[in-house]
Amino acid sequence: MSSTSPAPGQPSDNQLANKAQAWSALFSEPMSDLVKRYTSSVFFDKRLWAADIQGSLAHAEMLHAQGILAAQDLADIERGMAQIKSEIEAGQFEWQLDLEDVHLNIEARLTALVGLAGKRLHTGRSRNDQVATDVRLWLRGEIDELLLLLKALQTALVDVAEKNAETILPGFTHLQVAQPVAFGHHLLAYVEMFARDAERLIDARRRVNRLPLGAAALAGTSYPLDRERVARTLGMEGVCQNSLDAVSDRDFAIEFTAAASLVMVHISRLSEELILWMSQSFGFIDIADRFCTGSSIMPQKKNPDVPELARGKTGRVVGHLMGLITLMKGQPLAYNKDNQEDKEPLFDTVDTLKDTLRIFAEMAGGITVKPEAMERAALKGYATATDLADYLVKKGLAFRDAHEIVAHAVKTAIASGVDLSQLPLQELQKFDARIGDDVFEVLSLRGSLNARNILGGTAPAQVRSQVARHRARLI
Amino acid sequence: MSSTSPAPGQPSDNQLANKAQAWSALFSEPMSDLVKRYTSSVFFDKRLWAADIQGSLAHAEMLHAQGILAAQDLADIERGMAQIKSEIEAGQFEWQLDLEDVHLNIEARLTALVGLAGKRLHTGRSRNDQVATDVRLWLRGEIDELLLLLKALQTALVDVAEKNAETILPGFTHLQVAQPVAFGHHLLAYVEMFARDAERLIDARRRVNRLPLGAAALAGTSYPLDRERVARTLGMEGVCQNSLDAVSDRDFAIEFTAAASLVMVHISRLSEELILWMSQSFGFIDIADRFCTGSSIMPQKKNPDVPELARGKTGRVVGHLMGLITLMKGQPLAYNKDNQEDKEPLFDTVDTLKDTLRIFAEMAGGITVKPEAMERAALKGYATATDLADYLVKKGLAFRDAHEIVAHAVKTAIASGVDLSQLPLQELQKFDARIGDDVFEVLSLRGSLNARNILGGTAPAQVRSQVARHRARLI
Amino acid sequence: MSSTSPAPGQPSDNQLANKAQAWSALFSEPMSDLVKRYTSSVFFDKRLWAADIQGSLAHAEMLHAQGILAAQDLADIERGMAQIKSEIEAGQFEWQLDLEDVHLNIEARLTALVGLAGKRLHTGRSRNDQVATDVRLWLRGEIDELLLLLKALQTALVDVAEKNAETILPGFTHLQVAQPVAFGHHLLAYVEMFARDAERLIDARRRVNRLPLGAAALAGTSYPLDRERVARTLGMEGVCQNSLDAVSDRDFAIEFTAAASLVMVHISRLSEELILWMSQSFGFIDIADRFCTGSSIMPQKKNPDVPELARGKTGRVVGHLMGLITLMKGQPLAYNKDNQEDKEPLFDTVDTLKDTLRIFAEMAGGITVKPEAMERAALKGYATATDLADYLVKKGLAFRDAHEIVAHAVKTAIASGVDLSQLPLQELQKFDARIGDDVFEVLSLRGSLNARNILGGTAPAQVRSQVARHRARLI
Amino acid sequence: MSSTSPAPGQPSDNQLANKAQAWSALFSEPMSDLVKRYTSSVFFDKRLWAADIQGSLAHAEMLHAQGILAAQDLADIERGMAQIKSEIEAGQFEWQLDLEDVHLNIEARLTALVGLAGKRLHTGRSRNDQVATDVRLWLRGEIDELLLLLKALQTALVDVAEKNAETILPGFTHLQVAQPVAFGHHLLAYVEMFARDAERLIDARRRVNRLPLGAAALAGTSYPLDRERVARTLGMEGVCQNSLDAVSDRDFAIEFTAAASLVMVHISRLSEELILWMSQSFGFIDIADRFCTGSSIMPQKKNPDVPELARGKTGRVVGHLMGLITLMKGQPLAYNKDNQEDKEPLFDTVDTLKDTLRIFAEMAGGITVKPEAMERAALKGYATATDLADYLVKKGLAFRDAHEIVAHAVKTAIASGVDLSQLPLQELQKFDARIGDDVFEVLSLRGSLNARNILGGTAPAQVRSQVARHRARLI
Repeated sequence: MSSTSPAPGQPSDNQLANKAQAWSALFSEPMSDLVKRYTSSVFFDKRLWAADIQGSLAHAEMLHAQGILAAQDLADIERGMAQIKSEIEAGQFEWQLDLEDVHLNIEARLTALVGLAGKRLHTGRSRNDQVATDVRLWLRGEIDELLLLLKALQTALVDVAEKNAETILPGFTHLQVAQPVAFGHHLLAYVEMFARDAERLIDARRRVNRLPLGAAALAGTSYPLDRERVARTLGMEGVCQNSLDAVSDRDFAIEFTAAASLVMVHISRLSEELILWMSQSFGFIDIADRFCTGSSIMPQKKNPDVPELARGKTGRVVGHLMGLITLMKGQPLAYNKDNQEDKEPLFDTVDTLKDTLRIFAEMAGGITVKPEAMERAALKGYATATDLADYLVKKGLAFRDAHEIVAHAVKTAIASGVDLSQLPLQELQKFDARIGDDVFEVLSLRGSLNARNILGGTAPAQVRSQVARHRARLI
Repeated sequence: MSSTSPAPGQPSDNQLANKAQAWSALFSEPMSDLVKRYTSSVFFDKRLWAADIQGSLAHAEMLHAQGILAAQDLADIERGMAQIKSEIEAGQFEWQLDLEDVHLNIEARLTALVGLAGKRLHTGRSRNDQVATDVRLWLRGEIDELLLLLKALQTALVDVAEKNAETILPGFTHLQVAQPVAFGHHLLAYVEMFARDAERLIDARRRVNRLPLGAAALAGTSYPLDRERVARTLGMEGVCQNSLDAVSDRDFAIEFTAAASLVMVHISRLSEELILWMSQSFGFIDIADRFCTGSSIMPQKKNPDVPELARGKTGRVVGHLMGLITLMKGQPLAYNKDNQEDKEPLFDTVDTLKDTLRIFAEMAGGITVKPEAMERAALKGYATATDLADYLVKKGLAFRDAHEIVAHAVKTAIASGVDLSQLPLQELQKFDARIGDDVFEVLSLRGSLNARNILGGTAPAQVRSQVARHRARLI
Repeated sequence: MSSTSPAPGQPSDNQLANKAQAWSALFSEPMSDLVKRYTSSVFFDKRLWAADIQGSLAHAEMLHAQGILAAQDLADIERGMAQIKSEIEAGQFEWQLDLEDVHLNIEARLTALVGLAGKRLHTGRSRNDQVATDVRLWLRGEIDELLLLLKALQTALVDVAEKNAETILPGFTHLQVAQPVAFGHHLLAYVEMFARDAERLIDARRRVNRLPLGAAALAGTSYPLDRERVARTLGMEGVCQNSLDAVSDRDFAIEFTAAASLVMVHISRLSEELILWMSQSFGFIDIADRFCTGSSIMPQKKNPDVPELARGKTGRVVGHLMGLITLMKGQPLAYNKDNQEDKEPLFDTVDTLKDTLRIFAEMAGGITVKPEAMERAALKGYATATDLADYLVKKGLAFRDAHEIVAHAVKTAIASGVDLSQLPLQELQKFDARIGDDVFEVLSLRGSLNARNILGGTAPAQVRSQVARHRARLI
Repeated sequence: MSSTSPAPGQPSDNQLANKAQAWSALFSEPMSDLVKRYTSSVFFDKRLWAADIQGSLAHAEMLHAQGILAAQDLADIERGMAQIKSEIEAGQFEWQLDLEDVHLNIEARLTALVGLAGKRLHTGRSRNDQVATDVRLWLRGEIDELLLLLKALQTALVDVAEKNAETILPGFTHLQVAQPVAFGHHLLAYVEMFARDAERLIDARRRVNRLPLGAAALAGTSYPLDRERVARTLGMEGVCQNSLDAVSDRDFAIEFTAAASLVMVHISRLSEELILWMSQSFGFIDIADRFCTGSSIMPQKKNPDVPELARGKTGRVVGHLMGLITLMKGQPLAYNKDNQEDKEPLFDTVDTLKDTLRIFAEMAGGITVKPEAMERAALKGYATATDLADYLVKKGLAFRDAHEIVAHAVKTAIASGVDLSQLPLQELQKFDARIGDDVFEVLSLRGSLNARNILGGTAPAQVRSQVARHRARLI
């Protein structure tokens, strides 16, 4: 082999372009076609192209600042990358399976465009630290989008909650009528969940936003790179402090997917309730036609497809979490090819979350609330029995004894097929003589609701104050 | 609305083609574009097209046999389907997002081609039983392919095993040298695993191969369908006996994915060993260059990418299993839209398995065995200590006491840095006077190997007899 | 060390009893207490004692038959084991942490009781094949119990189904009223599921019921064991054909737990429905008080604790499945200590299943059906719209056109707040002139139910015929 | 029923003690024994007793401050709780299955001890908010312990790393020799992982440490509770702002278990490496006898049981994560009995982590490093080939061309069976004429190691500086 470098524009003298023959001079035969397809990642990881170019430019800029790369080379690289960017955006870039992944595809094209400068770009780095950098940059951007989407969904829920601060809904435990709650209060429970999801994503982002570049293959490099400069250029909060860890760490993918799984668990719970509420037996809400589908056989059907499908998609994201954990379990250091399997689950998790959050924010505005049906249901289950027990405690009974007395009263009411509030006073007084005329306000749904006027409680005043708190937070 | 039926060839008067306006007359607005994209399945379920057509033809044939469909209608449907088939195979079929799924896409095209007969095809069925039938038909075919691939992989392993019936490998427990085993014996352990995998797939196939069609939406239908006739036409072993179960059952997908997870667990174990054996510290095997890749930074590298990636793909399949279980958990009867999420994990599981089995069968023939390195390693860990204990038992000691005596001997040998077989006889006799000259045959690797000549043991004679058994089984 | 064997009754001269000092002569220090606690399994695996003794007796019997063990030794072992059995059953056996596991505990006690014969029992076997045998024997027994429990649950459901062959329930898809079904038909869907569960357990049992014993540590043994004799003695269907596979295989545990997960998925679906049906909004059933609990604060509450908890326990079993798969992923052959972690998830899975199946079989008889509430609910959602479409098809319309016509009719009925059957004939005829007087029978719930009289359909005649089929099957 | 309260000391007139008859007056029959056992949690949740008492005392103190509870009642409660605490600590407390859970057990005993005051304690709270508070208090304490254990493990690893800042280990990618790294550097990769684990636990702790108490059953309470006072008393960082969310949220359990799963993934990777390194083929380390066990059959065996078992326990913790997610998926608000299943996985996760971290910190000090074996292995795989490529780049070649030239050189060296450093200069110069005498320093392991002297690199100077950073951080 000649020791002179090939002239610019002769990419055929480039190892990368010869991969169809053999990986390198060391290899005696080309990769089998089946293997090529099995191990290639370019058809999913090309999605990282923008991050790949961004990382390469920051690397090149630093190589130049450190005197490793000439000014002309840097200029060539920048020019070449600009062209590649516009080729990709225009859909004209030719992705090649033979070039395995997004990194080699872009590098080979760069070398074809600008020659030697392209070959010099890879100085002091490896695909191991390059791919880790790309995924982190990409994921950081996606987290930022997800935070906006979580905010939009919270705002949409707060809007509906505000309108329903006084709407009475039967609060359930064990899906049995428990106590009346405001429908707005119920929706704000989900705002709390999505707010926690945002907290978790922000925490995870700090661990995503660290720079592996400079770890090279696994041990660092002998070039005098300035890793902190690259981190600053890329807006990263710090530098991975150990090269072996830098190339083999996929914690951030697992942590992100775990946080995403919790988002989907919350979506699944909200979906379950929307489906219940829209069933004819509950009949609490209607969902706008544009979020529903019909049936190919039953002409009367209008089905809440969106929440059902979202509930189902929980499995998809949870599956990805389990897949990623299984992937990393028991892997020795440092980089292993197994890790290539981190991308598809991560990509699909992000896509699923973005679609789902967007559609739920939109759907929240398409919910029609049916307050009469909710209130009618709240009257079915002796929802104010606890209020009667509390009333008795205020008259001097110990709570446990009051609880037992009310159980007797409920039993009697059930037997007569009436609500507690429909028992005449003298009947109620048979259970405890201290019961007076003021009991009927206590036994009303509205009275019960208003009574729970403590921080976090369901009284409309509390709901409004929470709405105000969320509004301030979600600006 | 007019009560006269639209004439053939006027598909624009067909509900299916009007979905862009509204699902049916019942809906007051069209589906939002976001929802359409979110709920549509056509871009992945179109893969079921062949099964969909097969199922439709069997249904139509039965409708005619039962007097529900005229001969001309059946002929029209058969002609239309033949054309659709050729359009799809030629890549000329226009899949439309607006038509949601593979079923409506094909039905709409059929109606466009043959008019009223197309509209009559859906008589007595629903997409609920149709999709369940399609998935089962498709999966049955894939299982049959997987069984062939499992057979090919077993055969490839048996081939290597046969050649290595005498090759000595250090058998490990706890990754510590335990006892010598034949390398062929070791490979046959994997043949056992893949044979069990095949058993499980065959068992699962019986539960896949049952007919849901005729369950209609959920309750059966008022048309006098002959479900058993359809089952016979489709080569199914039976008919789902309860319509609600028929449309909501996804057990078969979970059972299949669980069996697939076990296949991948076995692949991951074999992969782990291939990677270990190819590492320089073991150096037991080499894998042909066409299954390996190099490094973008380290010129000397040849990496066992295929087994690494396969080990990683275990996570993918296990993730799908967990996703499917999560999907079905807690779903009320009968069909819910959640179930649409069953397809992608199932498809990807099948693809992953097929690719992986195919590549492993190919790779088995690309393994170069290094018997000297294996034998050298077997000499490192006092692998015949158990043989010495057994020798002492034959001389009259209880096994537990012999075990303890040998532990003393090993301790002495370690201290002297020699193997047991390198201790002089008089040294050995210090541990037990009954040790005689015949001990050195016992202490040899080959002697140890040959001694384990019982059913399932590692003696070459046993390996050969197992090879013969497998050959007979795998014809 | 003396080469003479210790006399019977001197167990202190036994390696097993000296483990507090060091594992064997090879070890220079005793195990740390923390390690002892961490690695010991006796406090959960002692549950295998009966299988351990059963396996040991079969092994001893064969050793004697093969001339490896003297008649007196066999008699001693049988006598010792009988005593150990009665000690354990009487709760008088002293399980010792220092002796690690059930095997060493029993063996040490045996040696203390019968001396040398006890030490000779371990001839030709290892704890690796011993524990695999124990777990398989134990699990086989548990599967047999589970099959009985599944049968009892199916029978209990068939009993309720038979009584409710005519009870009208609104059948749901997407939790929207779809078509009327018989409540008995709905319950029989679960009988199908549990019947498939039983099929799967029977399939798994065949792979459980194979004998690893004789594989010894990993390579087989040099003693002329008769493995098939032991298999026959233990009622096993075959012998594991490869010693390495025999000691490292945990497929059977994963396959069993996957089948168990499906049982729990079915339980979770049934639970979800019981909870829905018992909620006041549905009000379809009541569950007997003895299966419910109250609230410490709300005196009126009666909560369906059993189905809720069962639904929750799905997670527990699914978690065990995931744990076991993670455990085995990537393990090299042969036995590794990781495998000790197979037992607790397996034990807990069996316990959870047995408790859950038993309690559901009992609870089925404690369900009070409220037919009026069910029928009232079925009237809410235009459940017979499909029947009207089918009616029109019989009058000559194509199904797709009939579907669209009925959608118009439903829209009109909704606007008027009435059911389809409440629209006057002339109103109906506006949608299609072919509608006649006979339509009202078609539009009735009972008419719809009776019409679905095909195999697997919901017509009471079909329900009764399925009940008969199940009765015959479940004898 | 009498309306007068029972006198103190008459607990038999207490609903709680009557549960054997019926849950409350509302129930017509006692709970079945099977149900009692199935639904009872006392035998695992009694572990929360200290948190339960702590929470109750804070609640009582606030009730008094708010004028809801008399001073005498508070004093009685404090006295009673002190006695209960000492009874439990002395093992004299009688836990009763009939009293379901830790809360009712303690409350019933309190009422037995102090009468009416005990019955008044439950004012304004429910078991729903009580159990959520207990679990959070308990988990907060456990997280604090885990943080200490993570610190101890990191310190132990830093100690070994410091001693091995110069020890040469073959760094692997794809388990193939890649480049020399310092053994100390390798260990510090794990310190990074455990440091991230600690970060995640600290983040999770913030979301654990919020107060649900005051949410009562689900809606808040009508008593004027001061929730922020209780939060301050209990050292919590805030109050759950929505009562429905407060009682139904189990995010914190899932988030904690996800963080714990990552800890175990890291442990599994370290374990895998310890097992590899201790295998005879690597022979890089020895683990002290007190962390190992022997074999019941093979007298020479010393097995690394602790890392193997720890690797296996990864499955256990990951399984719990999957179980908890499955548990919460699709649950409607607010509290459901399913949630009782949150405790056992959480408890077992904490126990597993604590034991494992403790034993690993201890074991780190029991590792004997074998530097010669490590260095010998580093010489096997052309580990300095990248250094030769970098050398050529410094002579003016583009990296990609240098990479290809070195591949040729390696091929030649392999063919001659020598290392690159063993090729004579004139031979090397055939590949590139610019190669000079200074190449041999570059080709040495030590030279390669020292050259990677950038932040995060493996040069001993970098390792020492990282050790200093960790020391400062871990004080």
